[in-house]
Amino acid sequence: MPTYTAPTRDAKFIVNELLDLASYGNRPGFEAATPDLIDTLIDEAGKFASEVLQPLNQVGDREGCTRHPDGSVTTPTGFKAAFDQYVAAGWSTLSQPAELGGQDVPHVLGFVLEEFVSSANHSFGMYPGLTNGAVSALLAFGSDELKNRYLPNMIANRWLGTMNLTEPQCGTDLGLIRTKAEPQGDGTYAITGTKIFISAGEHDLSENIIHLVLAKTPGAPDSSKGISLFVVPKFLVNDDGTLGARNAVQCGSIEHKMGIHGNATCVMNYDGATGWLVGEEMKGLAAMFVMMNAARLGVGIQGLAQAEAAYQNAVAYARERRQGRALTGPRDPEAKADAIIVHPDVRRMLMDAKAYTEGMRALYLWAALQVDIAHNSDDADERTAADDLLGLLTPVIKGYGTDKGFAVAVDMQQVFGGHGYIAEWGMEQFVRDARITQIYEGTNGIQAMDLCGRKLASKGGAAIQAFFRMIDDEVAGTEGDLAPMAEALGKAVGEQKAATMWFMQNAMANPENLGAGAHHYLHIMGVVSLGLMWLRMAKLATARLAAGPDDAAFYQAKVTTARYFFERYVPDAGALRQKIEAGSDAVMALDEDAFLTAA
Amino acid sequence: MPTYTAPTRDAKFIVNELLDLASYGNRPGFEAATPDLIDTLIDEAGKFASEVLQPLNQVGDREGCTRHPDGSVTTPTGFKAAFDQYVAAGWSTLSQPAELGGQDVPHVLGFVLEEFVSSANHSFGMYPGLTNGAVSALLAFGSDELKNRYLPNMIANRWLGTMNLTEPQCGTDLGLIRTKAEPQGDGTYAITGTKIFISAGEHDLSENIIHLVLAKTPGAPDSSKGISLFVVPKFLVNDDGTLGARNAVQCGSIEHKMGIHGNATCVMNYDGATGWLVGEEMKGLAAMFVMMNAARLGVGIQGLAQAEAAYQNAVAYARERRQGRALTGPRDPEAKADAIIVHPDVRRMLMDAKAYTEGMRALYLWAALQVDIAHNSDDADERTAADDLLGLLTPVIKGYGTDKGFAVAVDMQQVFGGHGYIAEWGMEQFVRDARITQIYEGTNGIQAMDLCGRKLASKGGAAIQAFFRMIDDEVAGTEGDLAPMAEALGKAVGEQKAATMWFMQNAMANPENLGAGAHHYLHIMGVVSLGLMWLRMAKLATARLAAGPDDAAFYQAKVTTARYFFERYVPDAGALRQKIEAGSDAVMALDEDAFLTAA
Repeated sequence: MPTYTAPTRDAKFIVNELLDLASYGNRPGFEAATPDLIDTLIDEAGKFASEVLQPLNQVGDREGCTRHPDGSVTTPTGFKAAFDQYVAAGWSTLSQPAELGGQDVPHVLGFVLEEFVSSANHSFGMYPGLTNGAVSALLAFGSDELKNRYLPNMIANRWLGTMNLTEPQCGTDLGLIRTKAEPQGDGTYAITGTKIFISAGEHDLSENIIHLVLAKTPGAPDSSKGISLFVVPKFLVNDDGTLGARNAVQCGSIEHKMGIHGNATCVMNYDGATGWLVGEEMKGLAAMFVMMNAARLGVGIQGLAQAEAAYQNAVAYARERRQGRALTGPRDPEAKADAIIVHPDVRRMLMDAKAYTEGMRALYLWAALQVDIAHNSDDADERTAADDLLGLLTPVIKGYGTDKGFAVAVDMQQVFGGHGYIAEWGMEQFVRDARITQIYEGTNGIQAMDLCGRKLASKGGAAIQAFFRMIDDEVAGTEGDLAPMAEALGKAVGEQKAATMWFMQNAMANPENLGAGAHHYLHIMGVVSLGLMWLRMAKLATARLAAGPDDAAFYQAKVTTARYFFERYVPDAGALRQKIEAGSDAVMALDEDAFLTAA
Repeated sequence: MPTYTAPTRDAKFIVNELLDLASYGNRPGFEAATPDLIDTLIDEAGKFASEVLQPLNQVGDREGCTRHPDGSVTTPTGFKAAFDQYVAAGWSTLSQPAELGGQDVPHVLGFVLEEFVSSANHSFGMYPGLTNGAVSALLAFGSDELKNRYLPNMIANRWLGTMNLTEPQCGTDLGLIRTKAEPQGDGTYAITGTKIFISAGEHDLSENIIHLVLAKTPGAPDSSKGISLFVVPKFLVNDDGTLGARNAVQCGSIEHKMGIHGNATCVMNYDGATGWLVGEEMKGLAAMFVMMNAARLGVGIQGLAQAEAAYQNAVAYARERRQGRALTGPRDPEAKADAIIVHPDVRRMLMDAKAYTEGMRALYLWAALQVDIAHNSDDADERTAADDLLGLLTPVIKGYGTDKGFAVAVDMQQVFGGHGYIAEWGMEQFVRDARITQIYEGTNGIQAMDLCGRKLASKGGAAIQAFFRMIDDEVAGTEGDLAPMAEALGKAVGEQKAATMWFMQNAMANPENLGAGAHHYLHIMGVVSLGLMWLRMAKLATARLAAGPDDAAFYQAKVTTARYFFERYVPDAGALRQKIEAGSDAVMALDEDAFLTAA
């Protein structure tokens, strides 16, 4: 049976020492971030995740969700009771605005909670997680009337939310949406169409479900510029806030899928359901992006979360399982064999996982800090800089973060040998659950194009240039024992700069040169971004060690893991740049029929 | 619903044009390899796989195997009937010796069959596949009495075979085996113990099941030098060949696992079962290696096979699914969107898969040719050279081949976006089934150590030096348009030579330097080995094109795919060498407790 212990010490190291969140306490939006509250929240979030949610993770995988003939859906045994506890403890309201019932705690801490919840039980975490996306869209674009009617209950998670984008013929390309929204003359719209892959589309956790639905109004253009966003509640909401009639939206079926069995993935049928416009007609794309960007960061965290859970169990197994002898001679001569953690190839996989999980934790929390600054700073330039940085980091955290998170989960399964393939050990569930993170909320190919096609070019490249300056400054400001790490980071960012330049020189003439290299660029930037985190963490840990702290082993491990990172991750940056510079010719040259199997 | 078309054209290109198998026809062991027979066998094998076995692949996954209270096991619906057809068609006897009922067809063609069967239905293919391993061990080490009693029926697949190595406490480290073999004074032994992860340990396909079991005789040393190999039939075999009493071996349970649900993975309980020694006491390890080496090549083929099946379905989907527009402008302006095969990132994944599957097919068939030469040549030096080369290639085909095969299957699932995660499309089954190939018959970490710790050093490095000379000769003999490919291969082998040298200089002082780099070395050698195949195929295709053949598109695609391979695979070799040369310090430095999650 797999176990999970929330990495609270590491989260506190990042929040308190690396980001120094409490130092922002006198700034608007950060008032709640007192040292006491930070540590208490992290501890309590960890406790809730490991004690309440983790024991339901395998149950959820085994049982899955059940759709009944009336279209209702029940979640796995224990999910409803755990969800009630989640709501009662107020976890859903953490980073939400106080005026709507939230606690105004910085997103940095809300993101820590998301990681712990997702590590403990990915499927469970999706129910409140998707609601956050829906809340973001309503906060940004909803009228006061809509906000007041829906948000307090959504923020309290008495009602959960969903995001309805995909249709059978329409995934990435939202211009293909067919769902119709007919104005009813009373300010409402009749929504008709079929949405698929709707996570948490129907379930038994909350009294009401608030669907945010993309649809087209009559005469709207047949492109993504023609889509509008609607609120479509499962139960209509009376003016006094009580629930009214059942709306004409039904779960038609639930999908059988590779993983995340505890979350109901629904086909949703809208049959003239009553909906309310969010924002303006034909401005749905912008609202969708607000919802999506919040969700994408969350998905990046999910990728890390599964890797972390898998890593912890692989460490435990590698310390217990005895097989063979250390290459340097028996480590434990009285036993018949040494624990497999003595084998360099097992260590390699564990170190690789450690370098990724701790580096990615620092990266997503740094991104979360940008969310808080972008929301709250009273300095417009600072808000812009935070927003630009966040725009760059979002596809990296989602795309690179989940590619690597999946790879780490697979490696951790590998540590178990044959037992990793057997369901009861739980490792194969981590792999199956992690796999979705590379796919949903925009496949990682879409993330790569978002980074290379949109974010690099925005504002004439100002965002990426600012990112490069930040790395250059960090490298320039490194001396002494850590100089080789800085040199490695300098080399990695040098590869990224060269690749950026190559795109500038070659993508104009042929945009396929960009498309064929985007995936590789995303991965170079992943290495550089984690490298920045590791250099900063190594510096901080070195400074702490100089003071002779009680937990010197923790800081020493940071320095060693940083060294591993720079030795073993950075070489890939050069290889990736070479692949980019090979261009798109060989990628695109074949006639489409040449891919068919010849008999 | 996924489909499968056997790549018969590509197999014939490799067998007839690249390897020119018919040219060996006047040599012992190759007599059957006439041009007609080769083409007919390849066509018929493809037909059988796609028509009979593929339709059962999803059924097998969905139903799995069922163990009944009496310990019997039934395979999924349709498996028994298909197996009867397989036996009736004589597929099992293809590459087996004529004197025992086989057809003496070269292994090259037997391996083609293995690929097609495994692509169509991995779980099904394991039943006859494992029998091949058991047959190899009996052929090499069994007494004439044992051979005559078991092999004709095993070769005809009237009886299937198994390999019983693993025990709960004993995986890689065979010295930990506890199963006991007590001599009974009549030439037989009483076998007692528990074996786990026994593929096809019990089923309803064949009249009898012949278990090959590793066990320890009384007083044998507590190491791998103390193990012996036994034949333990499910039903004892009377002197007249009829089946006698049920032996004391039972399937205690079957495992619930990530994939290959159609194959029964059994816990086997031996309770004083009657067994017969194969070869000599305490020489079981050598017999095990014969069985294992045959199985390892088969597993490498399975990794390719799942990638191939996934690739074919991804191609079909990418040509059908319409989403977005080509970066260079609409390709299909009348439709609302272009097929996604126009997108460079989708192409990148398809080209990557094509370069791997076709390259690996050439590599395993070249290895199969070495099997035939090593078995049959009347020139002792030639036999030795073939055997040395095969020794090097086996861990590469198993380890690199399945790592990359799994990665390709994952990429092909990615092409499907969200649909790839849904069971009915079949893509996630390819991923789950492919995953086992990295684990069983020695994890890929073990393959890497086999290559670096044993094969590189054997005969003072003669085998790897011969391999390098072969590559150097191929590079030196390349001119004209293909010179850049040769240059790239030269660069890749240069990295491998440097890494080899680094091991020689650094592994003696600290063997962990070898252990920490073995995985990366395996992957460099994978790139170099595929590179050799691609350079040879590009040369051959270029020569064919000069003659203006009818199917010029096939040969042109070879040249383009070769170019893709050299541009996109070779850069990794340099990065891998850098990782090796980083050594083991940072990998091994942490105290074991530093891996624990700190609270």
